[in-house]
Amino acid sequence: MKTVNTAHQKAWGYLEQCLIDKGLEPDLMLRMVGQIDIAIPSWALGTGGTRFGRFGCGGEPRTLAEKLNDVAVLNRLTRCAGSISLHIPWDKPSHVDDIRDYAQHLGIRIGSVNSNTFQDLGEAQSYKFGSLSHVNRMVREQAVAHNMEVVEIGKALGAETLSLWLADGSSYPGQDDFMGRLDRIKNSLREIYDCLPDNWQMLIEYKPFEPHFYSMCIPDWGTAWLLARECGPRALVLVDLGHHLPNTNIAQIVATLLWKGALGGFHFNDSKYADDDLTVGCLRPYDLYLIFCELTKENTWSTQKRNWMIDASHNLKDPLEDLIQSIENIQIALAKSLCLDRKKLALAQEHNDIALCEQVLLDAYLTDMRPLVAEARLRSGGMANPLSSFRDERIREKLIGERGSQSKASGL
Amino acid sequence: MKTVNTAHQKAWGYLEQCLIDKGLEPDLMLRMVGQIDIAIPSWALGTGGTRFGRFGCGGEPRTLAEKLNDVAVLNRLTRCAGSISLHIPWDKPSHVDDIRDYAQHLGIRIGSVNSNTFQDLGEAQSYKFGSLSHVNRMVREQAVAHNMEVVEIGKALGAETLSLWLADGSSYPGQDDFMGRLDRIKNSLREIYDCLPDNWQMLIEYKPFEPHFYSMCIPDWGTAWLLARECGPRALVLVDLGHHLPNTNIAQIVATLLWKGALGGFHFNDSKYADDDLTVGCLRPYDLYLIFCELTKENTWSTQKRNWMIDASHNLKDPLEDLIQSIENIQIALAKSLCLDRKKLALAQEHNDIALCEQVLLDAYLTDMRPLVAEARLRSGGMANPLSSFRDERIREKLIGERGSQSKASGL
Amino acid sequence: MKTVNTAHQKAWGYLEQCLIDKGLEPDLMLRMVGQIDIAIPSWALGTGGTRFGRFGCGGEPRTLAEKLNDVAVLNRLTRCAGSISLHIPWDKPSHVDDIRDYAQHLGIRIGSVNSNTFQDLGEAQSYKFGSLSHVNRMVREQAVAHNMEVVEIGKALGAETLSLWLADGSSYPGQDDFMGRLDRIKNSLREIYDCLPDNWQMLIEYKPFEPHFYSMCIPDWGTAWLLARECGPRALVLVDLGHHLPNTNIAQIVATLLWKGALGGFHFNDSKYADDDLTVGCLRPYDLYLIFCELTKENTWSTQKRNWMIDASHNLKDPLEDLIQSIENIQIALAKSLCLDRKKLALAQEHNDIALCEQVLLDAYLTDMRPLVAEARLRSGGMANPLSSFRDERIREKLIGERGSQSKASGL
Amino acid sequence: MKTVNTAHQKAWGYLEQCLIDKGLEPDLMLRMVGQIDIAIPSWALGTGGTRFGRFGCGGEPRTLAEKLNDVAVLNRLTRCAGSISLHIPWDKPSHVDDIRDYAQHLGIRIGSVNSNTFQDLGEAQSYKFGSLSHVNRMVREQAVAHNMEVVEIGKALGAETLSLWLADGSSYPGQDDFMGRLDRIKNSLREIYDCLPDNWQMLIEYKPFEPHFYSMCIPDWGTAWLLARECGPRALVLVDLGHHLPNTNIAQIVATLLWKGALGGFHFNDSKYADDDLTVGCLRPYDLYLIFCELTKENTWSTQKRNWMIDASHNLKDPLEDLIQSIENIQIALAKSLCLDRKKLALAQEHNDIALCEQVLLDAYLTDMRPLVAEARLRSGGMANPLSSFRDERIREKLIGERGSQSKASGL
Repeated sequence: MKTVNTAHQKAWGYLEQCLIDKGLEPDLMLRMVGQIDIAIPSWALGTGGTRFGRFGCGGEPRTLAEKLNDVAVLNRLTRCAGSISLHIPWDKPSHVDDIRDYAQHLGIRIGSVNSNTFQDLGEAQSYKFGSLSHVNRMVREQAVAHNMEVVEIGKALGAETLSLWLADGSSYPGQDDFMGRLDRIKNSLREIYDCLPDNWQMLIEYKPFEPHFYSMCIPDWGTAWLLARECGPRALVLVDLGHHLPNTNIAQIVATLLWKGALGGFHFNDSKYADDDLTVGCLRPYDLYLIFCELTKENTWSTQKRNWMIDASHNLKDPLEDLIQSIENIQIALAKSLCLDRKKLALAQEHNDIALCEQVLLDAYLTDMRPLVAEARLRSGGMANPLSSFRDERIREKLIGERGSQSKASGL
Repeated sequence: MKTVNTAHQKAWGYLEQCLIDKGLEPDLMLRMVGQIDIAIPSWALGTGGTRFGRFGCGGEPRTLAEKLNDVAVLNRLTRCAGSISLHIPWDKPSHVDDIRDYAQHLGIRIGSVNSNTFQDLGEAQSYKFGSLSHVNRMVREQAVAHNMEVVEIGKALGAETLSLWLADGSSYPGQDDFMGRLDRIKNSLREIYDCLPDNWQMLIEYKPFEPHFYSMCIPDWGTAWLLARECGPRALVLVDLGHHLPNTNIAQIVATLLWKGALGGFHFNDSKYADDDLTVGCLRPYDLYLIFCELTKENTWSTQKRNWMIDASHNLKDPLEDLIQSIENIQIALAKSLCLDRKKLALAQEHNDIALCEQVLLDAYLTDMRPLVAEARLRSGGMANPLSSFRDERIREKLIGERGSQSKASGL
Repeated sequence: MKTVNTAHQKAWGYLEQCLIDKGLEPDLMLRMVGQIDIAIPSWALGTGGTRFGRFGCGGEPRTLAEKLNDVAVLNRLTRCAGSISLHIPWDKPSHVDDIRDYAQHLGIRIGSVNSNTFQDLGEAQSYKFGSLSHVNRMVREQAVAHNMEVVEIGKALGAETLSLWLADGSSYPGQDDFMGRLDRIKNSLREIYDCLPDNWQMLIEYKPFEPHFYSMCIPDWGTAWLLARECGPRALVLVDLGHHLPNTNIAQIVATLLWKGALGGFHFNDSKYADDDLTVGCLRPYDLYLIFCELTKENTWSTQKRNWMIDASHNLKDPLEDLIQSIENIQIALAKSLCLDRKKLALAQEHNDIALCEQVLLDAYLTDMRPLVAEARLRSGGMANPLSSFRDERIREKLIGERGSQSKASGL
Repeated sequence: MKTVNTAHQKAWGYLEQCLIDKGLEPDLMLRMVGQIDIAIPSWALGTGGTRFGRFGCGGEPRTLAEKLNDVAVLNRLTRCAGSISLHIPWDKPSHVDDIRDYAQHLGIRIGSVNSNTFQDLGEAQSYKFGSLSHVNRMVREQAVAHNMEVVEIGKALGAETLSLWLADGSSYPGQDDFMGRLDRIKNSLREIYDCLPDNWQMLIEYKPFEPHFYSMCIPDWGTAWLLARECGPRALVLVDLGHHLPNTNIAQIVATLLWKGALGGFHFNDSKYADDDLTVGCLRPYDLYLIFCELTKENTWSTQKRNWMIDASHNLKDPLEDLIQSIENIQIALAKSLCLDRKKLALAQEHNDIALCEQVLLDAYLTDMRPLVAEARLRSGGMANPLSSFRDERIREKLIGERGSQSKASGL
C-alpha cells in the first residue's frame, strides 16, 4: 500500500508539474474528473450472454437490494458510481419505499428508469411483433401503459428520466409499412410524453439493427430526433456507442446533437462489429477521447444534468471488474480531453493548419493521465487502483460465499 | 426487326393477360412506366475515372451542345430521358439563350442546376479547405456568390431546382470544429435560400465520406434535414443511393423522408463498397425495387415534381450504353413496384403474417416485367431494346467519327 | 386445386417454350432443379431467438423423432429436403438404431453431424474460454473427444461428414495469443481428422465475429483453408453466407474455393448486418443467383457430394414456413443460374464487352422461373406451391394440437 | 532550443527511470526504436488527390533526384527514413547509374521497386481491362514484360524486392470469370517469379475494392497467400493497412501471416472508411499499437529484412509534414509495444484472466513514450521534434523558392 502510494505520489507530482507548465489548472481538472457521475445499469451487474450461451461468474446479485449493494461497492472504490439505472420489469421493486430508503442508506441515487417492451413474461407474447409501433392498438396501449407505470415507479424512487429503447422493427422487407409505423410510434410516444412530470425528461435511443435484422423503427439519430421533436422540448436523443453502422463518426453525431441542444445522455460501451457491448474504451480509446473532446467543449458541461451510463454486457469478465475498467477508461478519456489546449487548437483551425491541429490533439491524448485519475479518486475517498483493491479485498469471493456460485442476476 | 417485334408481341400479350388476371390495369402501368422522367447529368456523358486513372471511350461530347445531342439520342431511344442536369462551372454556357433555344429545339428540358464548390480552376485553390463552411468569410462569400450565379444561369435556362452537394469536410480529427462548422454552413445555406426565386427548390445532398475521410459536413440525411429546416420549406433532402455507410437501409430513409414531406429528389446509381457510382440496379436490384415500392406508394407520386437523376460514373462501359442500362433497370424496378398487390400486402401486415407479406412482395418482384417496359417505350415512340438499337445504329462509331477518338468530355 | 393446376400449366407451357426458343433443355433443367438435396438442420425446426428474447410458435418438435417428422413433412411438400443435419449434444439419440431405422422409414437420410463446443451443459462451463484452442490441455482434449463421439454417432447413423464450427475466439485485445492459438487449433483439428473414417470429410467453417467480438479463431476462408491444409485432403471449407464482413464478395470466395477444390459445403441463409440468419434469398436474391452461377458452372456440380444445408434462425416466422420459403428461393436461384447462356457470356467476356456480359446475366436473372420450379416439384411428387399446401393442410395447427402450444424444440 | 532540450531531458529522465522500475532495458529500446527503417515511396512526396480534385502545396519535387533530396531531408530530421521505394514508370530513371550514385551520395538506399500496370501512358490504354489477368494474352505479356523491366531497373539500383499491387478486377458481375482469371494471374505471376534474382523477394499486395467496384482479383490475404504459394518461397504477402473491409481485425491477419512465415512487408497508413490513405496512426492509434505488439513479438523482428513503407496520400497536409507525422506515430506505436510486459501477459493469458490481460496491454499503451522516441532520434543525430524543426528551418518555403509554387511531383 505504502509502495503504491509512494509510486503514485511521484507520478502525480511529475504530472501535476507538467500540467502547470502547460498552463492548465490541475485542481480544477481533479474536481471535474472526480465528480463525474456514471450511472450503473441494474442489468449489467450480472453476467450477460449471447444467443449461443451464457457463462455465469458466481456471486451475482439475486435481488434489487443486492444490485444496490454491488453499486455501492463500485462507488466506494471509484467514488463516481453513485447512481443506478433500473430496468422495469426486471427490477420492479415489490416495496418501492424500502428500495428508496435502502438506496439512500447506501448513498446511491436512482438515475433513469428504463421501460422494457421487448420481452413479455406471460404466454401472450404481446411484443413479438412490436410494442409502441404494433399494428394492433391494444398492444400499443399495453406498451404505453407499461411506460407510464415505469414513470410512476421512477417518481416514487426519485428518478427524473425515462429512457426508451424501442426494440420494434422488422426482419423482412414488407413485414411492416415504414410510414404507418412512424405514425403509430409518434402517437405512442406523444401519449407517454404528455404524462411525464414537468421535471422529467424522456430520452429516445436509436439502433440500426438487432433484435430485428431488416429495419429498426428508430435506426439512427435523425429518426430519434424527428420523433423527439414531435413530442416536445424535454424529449431528447440518447446515444449508445454501440448502436451505429460500420464507420459511423460518432463524435460528429454528438457534436451535431449538442449543436441542436438535443443530446440527452449516453450509453457507454465499446464495439468492433455490432452492438458488442464490450468494456468502454477497450477497442477504440481514441474515438472515446474524441467524443469527450466534444462533451467537454461546452462551458456548461459539468453543471448540466447528463445521463451518462455504462451499458455493457459482461459475458467473460467479472461484471464488477468490467465496470471498474469501464469507469477507469471513461475517466482517462475525460482527463485527456481536459488537457486539450483549446485556444491553440482554435487558432490552428482558423489557419487550416491541419498538421498543427493534430499535434495539439495528440499532445493531450498521448499524455499519461492515469496519475490524475488516481489522485482524483484518492481525494474523494476512493482507491488509487480500484481493480487491484477489488481483488485484494477478495470481493468476488465474498459475494460467491454469500450468494452462491450459481446465483444468477434477476431479469436476464 | 420483325422477329423482335413478333417475339415482343408474344411476350407482351402473355404478360398483359397475367396482369389482367391479377386485377391490375396494364394501360395505367404502361403510362406510368412510359412517362417517368429521368434526368441525365451533363457530367455523365463522358468517361469517368478514379484517382488511379481514366480510360476514354472516344466520341465524347466536347461542348454543352454536344452533350445535349447525346441526351437527345438517349431520349429518342428510351423516351424517358427528356431532361439534362447541368454542373456549373463545367457546363457554364457562354451564350445562355443559344443553349436554351437549342435544348428546346431538341426537346430537352433543363432539370436541376448543380453548383460546384469542390474544384476551383484558378491558382487560388480557394476551396481546398471548404466552401460554404470555410473558416474564412471571404471563401464562404465566394461560394455563396457562385451558387447565386448558378441560380441565375438556371433561371435563364428554365430550371427550377438548385442541387447542392457540399464536398466540405475534414480528413483528420481536430481539423475543424464540428459545431462552428454547422453554424457557418447554416448561415451560408440561408443566404442562398433567401435568394431563390419563389418557384424554385433547393436540394441538399448528404454523403458520409469522400473526398474527405474523417467527416463530411453533411454526412447523413439527418444533418441534411436539420439544415433544410433552418432554411425553409422549399429546402429538401436529396438522396444519392451511393452515399451511405455499409448496410444502411435506404428504402427506410426514403420512407422517413416521404413521411416528413422532405424528399426532394434522387441521384440513382449502384454500389457495393463506397460511392462506386455504378450502373443503376446492377448490384442490388432488389433494394432498388424496394425503394420504388416506397416511391410509388404515394398516390401523388406521378404528379409531383421529383428530381430523378442518374448519377453514375462510367469508367469502363460506354457512357451512353451505361445510361441506357441504368434507365432500363429503373423502369424495370418501377414496373415491378406497380405490380405489387398493396391491398393484399396491407392485409398481411395487419395480421403480422410475415411469410405472406414476403410472398406478396416477391410475387411482384419475380414477375418478368421487361415486356411491359418495352411496350411502354414502343407506345411512346422509343425502342423495344434501346441497347441493341444503339449498337445496330452504330451510334458510338458515328460519334467517334464526328468528334474523334480522343475527345474528352469537358469539365472532367 | 384445378384452377391452380390450370394456371400452372399455362405458365409452365409458356416458360417451356421460351426456354426451348433460347436453346435450353427444359427436361434437363427440371431434373437438376428437382434433384437438389438441401439438408435441414435439426436445430432450425424450432423457433430461434436473440439475446433479447425468444417467441415460440407452438407445436415445436420436442424430440429427435419429432424433428425427423417435421423434415419428412418438408420433404413431402418440396421433394428436396430428404436429409437432416444433427447437432450433438442437442440431438444426441438415446437409441441410435431406433433413430436410424425411423429415419429410413421416413425416407430421410442423415447428412452431416455437427459438434458443439460452445455450450456445455454441466456446471464446469469448460468452454467459456474456448474449446479446441483452449489454453488448458484438458479442455482441448475434452473438445477433441466430443468431436470423436460425434463421429461415432454419425457413423452409426450413416453420416459421412463432420461439420465443425468453432466458436472459439476472444472479445478483448490481449485476451489470447493469436499465434499460440493457431498452433493449438491446428493440433486439435489434426487429432480429429486423423480419427475420421476414410470415407468421411471434415468441413471447417469460418466466421468473423459472434459470439466473440474482438477476434474469432477462424475468422475468414483463408484461415479455414490454412487449417484444412494442415489436416489433409478431406478437410474442406464450409461457407455460411452470413459469416462475412460487410460488403464481402461471397460469390468470389466460392469461385476461389472451387478453383482450389476446397469448397466442402454451404450453410444457406441471408443477412443484412451480421449473422442475421434470415430466410435464404430474402434480402439479396441477386447475390444468391450469382453464387449459384458459380456453383453450376462446373460440369460436375450435380454429381458431387455437396453439403448444402439451410442454416437460418426462425425468430418470427413459423419455422416450417420459413424453411419452405428458403427452399423455394434456393430452387429459384438455381433455376435462373441454369438459364444462363454461358457460351454467350464467355464470348462477351473474351471481348471485354461488359455491357453485354451484364445483359446476358440479367437475361437469365429476370426470367420468371417459378413455373419450372413448380413443375420440377410436381414431377417428383411434391406440391406446386408448398407454402399454400402447408397452410391449406393446417399442418401447424395439427402440430400444436399434438405437441402443445408451449412446446419448445429441444436443444435451444 | 535549449529550453526544448531541458524539457526533453527532464521528460526523458523521468521516463527512463519508470522503464527501469518496470524491469525494462531503455538502451535496448532506444536502439530498436532508433533503428527502425521506414521506406518512403517516391509517389508520396507530392500532393495526392481524389477523383474530385487535387490541391498542390508548392515546391513539389519535379524529378527523381529532387525526390531523393526530399527523402534525405526526412532522413536528416528523423534518422529512420533512409530508403526510398520507386514506382516504375513514374520514376523510371533515364540514367540509372547517376541515380544510384546520387542516392548513395545522399545516404539513401533503394528499397522495393513497384511495378505499375494500372495506368498506361500511350493511346493504347492496354490495361483498361486488366493486366496480368487480362483475357488477351498480348496484354498479359506486356504486363509481365513490364515487371521484368522493373526488376532490371531495381537490380541496377541495388533493390532486392519487387512489390506488386494488381489493380485488376471487375466492376460488374459477369464482367470476368473468377476462376479463369485466377488461372491467368497465377501463370503471369509465376513467369515473373521465375525471372527474379535469387536474392530477391516478390511481395503480393491485396485490396478488396478500388479502382474496381465489384471484385478485385486479389481481394484478401487468403488469395494473396494462395497465389504466393503457387509461385515459390520468396513470394510473400504485403499488408496495406487501408486495404481491408470494414471491421477487419488486421492485427490478427498479421499474426496469421507471421505464423505461416508469409508476411513480406507493410504499407502503413490509416483510414476510416476505405483506402483513405491518411497519416499513419491518425485515426486508430490503438490498432496500430496492437499490430506492433504482433510484429515485435518475434525475437527475430529487428534482424529480418522487412519492407516497411509508408503508403499515404497527402491531399491536404504538406507531404513532408505528413510523412514526419507518420514516422513519429509509427515510432510511438513501436516504442509502446516494446513496453509491453510479455511475461505478465502470457501468464494472465494462461489463466484466462482477461481483465488482467487488458491491464497489461493498457499499461504499455498508456505510457507516454514520446520522450524515448525523441531521445532515440537525438542519439542517432536526428531532431527531438522533427515537425518543429521542419517549420523552424522553413524547408517548404525554401523548396517553393527553388522549385516554384506550381511544381507538381512527376508521375501523379
